[in-house]
Amino acid sequence: MKLQAAIDRVTLEQAKDLACQLDPIVDIIEMGTSLIKDYGFYALNKEALGLQHAELLLDAKTIDEGQYEFEKGFETGADILTVMGAASQGTLETTYKVAERYGRQMFIDLMEVNDQKLAAIDQFENAIYGLHHAKDDTGAFDAADSVASFHQKYPQIKRINVAGGIDLNQARKLKAQGIAETVIVGSKIVKAADPVAAAKEFMKEVK
Amino acid sequence: MKLQAAIDRVTLEQAKDLACQLDPIVDIIEMGTSLIKDYGFYALNKEALGLQHAELLLDAKTIDEGQYEFEKGFETGADILTVMGAASQGTLETTYKVAERYGRQMFIDLMEVNDQKLAAIDQFENAIYGLHHAKDDTGAFDAADSVASFHQKYPQIKRINVAGGIDLNQARKLKAQGIAETVIVGSKIVKAADPVAAAKEFMKEVK
Repeated sequence: MKLQAAIDRVTLEQAKDLACQLDPIVDIIEMGTSLIKDYGFYALNKEALGLQHAELLLDAKTIDEGQYEFEKGFETGADILTVMGAASQGTLETTYKVAERYGRQMFIDLMEVNDQKLAAIDQFENAIYGLHHAKDDTGAFDAADSVASFHQKYPQIKRINVAGGIDLNQARKLKAQGIAETVIVGSKIVKAADPVAAAKEFMKEVK
Repeated sequence: MKLQAAIDRVTLEQAKDLACQLDPIVDIIEMGTSLIKDYGFYALNKEALGLQHAELLLDAKTIDEGQYEFEKGFETGADILTVMGAASQGTLETTYKVAERYGRQMFIDLMEVNDQKLAAIDQFENAIYGLHHAKDDTGAFDAADSVASFHQKYPQIKRINVAGGIDLNQARKLKAQGIAETVIVGSKIVKAADPVAAAKEFMKEVK
């Protein structure tokens, strides 16, 4: 299982510093939506960030203008870009085409996607499907249970990524379960007193 | 009726130049999602843009993290911020509260919002409800017809803003109709050989 460390709601300087520290350890470094909306794609160029090892995910949350945003995001060096599952079918088809053309990856954020919509967007074979709770939704969320029930309902979807309050216990449970391809950890790594040590602890659980 | 000129998919330099030229003429200047994702909120500060007359709309298309994005957007000087109607109820309630607290405005983008979802989000009395086609949707769209049928279905919604291929004829039709509060014009102004002259032509139709 892969570990994706999510950096969010910090200054550009802090984001760069965290990315640099975590780059040799984790599989994927996510620059959160807040960083894109505060500073923009150009400031989050993979080369400028100095990433040598980890893949770069930019959480663009594209909901329209699929071609423009995905081309811009891949040109800035992103390996993975996110699109909202709630976007129109046209947008999803466009972003998928762009991702395939660049040989990069599309991550579909399933927030506010109901079963009917999911049935219409389950055909993107190489896409990563991301399960998580909206940050504005304060209800309970058990990552492993959510992954199990999603997999049962949509066995044809191969690539699953999950986020939402993942701690070491949840990471261990998800690894044992063997369904999710990647787990996203945010504050438990980046807000830890020692982010590098925290990332190493999580890596032990997921590998 | 108000005129909102939408600036999109240009460099920051070009956006600033257009904003400066259009500021004395139009009611609202929109900095499109592409400018936010390319350059970020900080680069689109109202003071840095030098706006003296027009209101500033930042098309943030918030879909989560409502409080963070709306506070950041208003702090950069936006008068109006957009949120997706497809966002969770929690996000919409949060962004509305932030907008009311700042005494600024929330614009709900109705892209990919069906009747069922709209019935759940029609209660934001001071919000502007925005009708438009996704840029990735190539189907036909008649602005005046869309406004008429929306108004018939949702007479309780007082503030309507409409976008999508608006030319001088459509602007005239919408003004005569008297339902929409604001009309958004993009390429017909900002891609015109003389954007200032084009904006003046539109102002004649809407006032």
